[in-house]
Amino acid sequence: MTEHPDLPRLQRRLAEFAAARNWGRYHTPKNLASALSVESSELVEIFQWLTPEESARVMSDPGTAHRVRDEVADVLAYLLQLCQVLDIDPLVALSEKIDRNEHRFPAPED
Amino acid sequence: MTEHPDLPRLQRRLAEFAAARNWGRYHTPKNLASALSVESSELVEIFQWLTPEESARVMSDPGTAHRVRDEVADVLAYLLQLCQVLDIDPLVALSEKIDRNEHRFPAPED
Amino acid sequence: MTEHPDLPRLQRRLAEFAAARNWGRYHTPKNLASALSVESSELVEIFQWLTPEESARVMSDPGTAHRVRDEVADVLAYLLQLCQVLDIDPLVALSEKIDRNEHRFPAPED
Amino acid sequence: MTEHPDLPRLQRRLAEFAAARNWGRYHTPKNLASALSVESSELVEIFQWLTPEESARVMSDPGTAHRVRDEVADVLAYLLQLCQVLDIDPLVALSEKIDRNEHRFPAPED
Repeated sequence: MTEHPDLPRLQRRLAEFAAARNWGRYHTPKNLASALSVESSELVEIFQWLTPEESARVMSDPGTAHRVRDEVADVLAYLLQLCQVLDIDPLVALSEKIDRNEHRFPAPED
Repeated sequence: MTEHPDLPRLQRRLAEFAAARNWGRYHTPKNLASALSVESSELVEIFQWLTPEESARVMSDPGTAHRVRDEVADVLAYLLQLCQVLDIDPLVALSEKIDRNEHRFPAPED
Repeated sequence: MTEHPDLPRLQRRLAEFAAARNWGRYHTPKNLASALSVESSELVEIFQWLTPEESARVMSDPGTAHRVRDEVADVLAYLLQLCQVLDIDPLVALSEKIDRNEHRFPAPED
Repeated sequence: MTEHPDLPRLQRRLAEFAAARNWGRYHTPKNLASALSVESSELVEIFQWLTPEESARVMSDPGTAHRVRDEVADVLAYLLQLCQVLDIDPLVALSEKIDRNEHRFPAPED
């Protein structure tokens, strides 16, 4: 891969992948939100019995590191597919949310 | 806003927001994965009693559309913060996952 | 209340509550499983930024204790309703699972 | 088994099972709530791509029925263990919650 992947390209690849397998009918917003939460829980599962300190060292084991990256990818995949069927730009949504949070939770003065 | 927000800039804003409030000690990978799954469930909650058809029309109500965008932003915020503390590039992780899936689940021939 | 509540009585009360509000059509197994996971996440949310030690003291604050009991009740309510629509006896299911686990994970010898 | 299992007996078996394997130190309320939500998501996963109608027939396939019962058991197991470490009676919590809901959401008049 010579270029860094970007979000629109990844969304396009995900859409083509699903279309080629005729999965469109499964991809209702309700189902994609469910799948997103199931994948998030698979990420939680990796950490569930770890102490906070152990959880901070999770990437030092290659097998666990691979598993974490794999679940991160799955979460992002369903988030992007959900955004696509709902016509949401996730980067704009987050940018606006940070703007709102900066008003709602002003940083303490130094 | 004159530029489209990009992931590295959003990650930087999130990091500065957390640092200004001294939230770093809460942001263990374990806690961030939990928060990610809690926000994913808040997204699921919007859809939980809807039929598949109703779920497809969720953005036509402005109040619900705002709520969906808000939860999408929260999910992405915690995913990016988790990736930052674990030093994972989420776009590369997803790109590699799609590569693997294309091998594992070949598209049916036309 | 003079008697200790039992599971079948609680299941009956939940069924009557839903029937009186005409909620039966919402209570597909799929939706009830979603609602169960949403309520579980509301329980997780109470603990998400706490250290293990803080999480062990959660019942010493009356407001938090009430919130925990409330979410425990919601989780159990949806679990019982799911079991009812699927005709599963949750106590038998758990008893059989413990039997299987005792075979799969023998206790270490003293 | 000649008797129907009851909640206190199941809680005792779960406590003995965990104690024999020295799992007590993992069973903080925070970790048990996480495990409960992970198991709830494994239940959701069974239903995530099904239509409402398909979800209603899930017990007619013996393999899927076994999987559903197995996940129901896991959810109940972690709920009971969480209640035990927090000294919550889940049946009383639910009974009180139904009482409150009957006040908050009066049934419509016939």
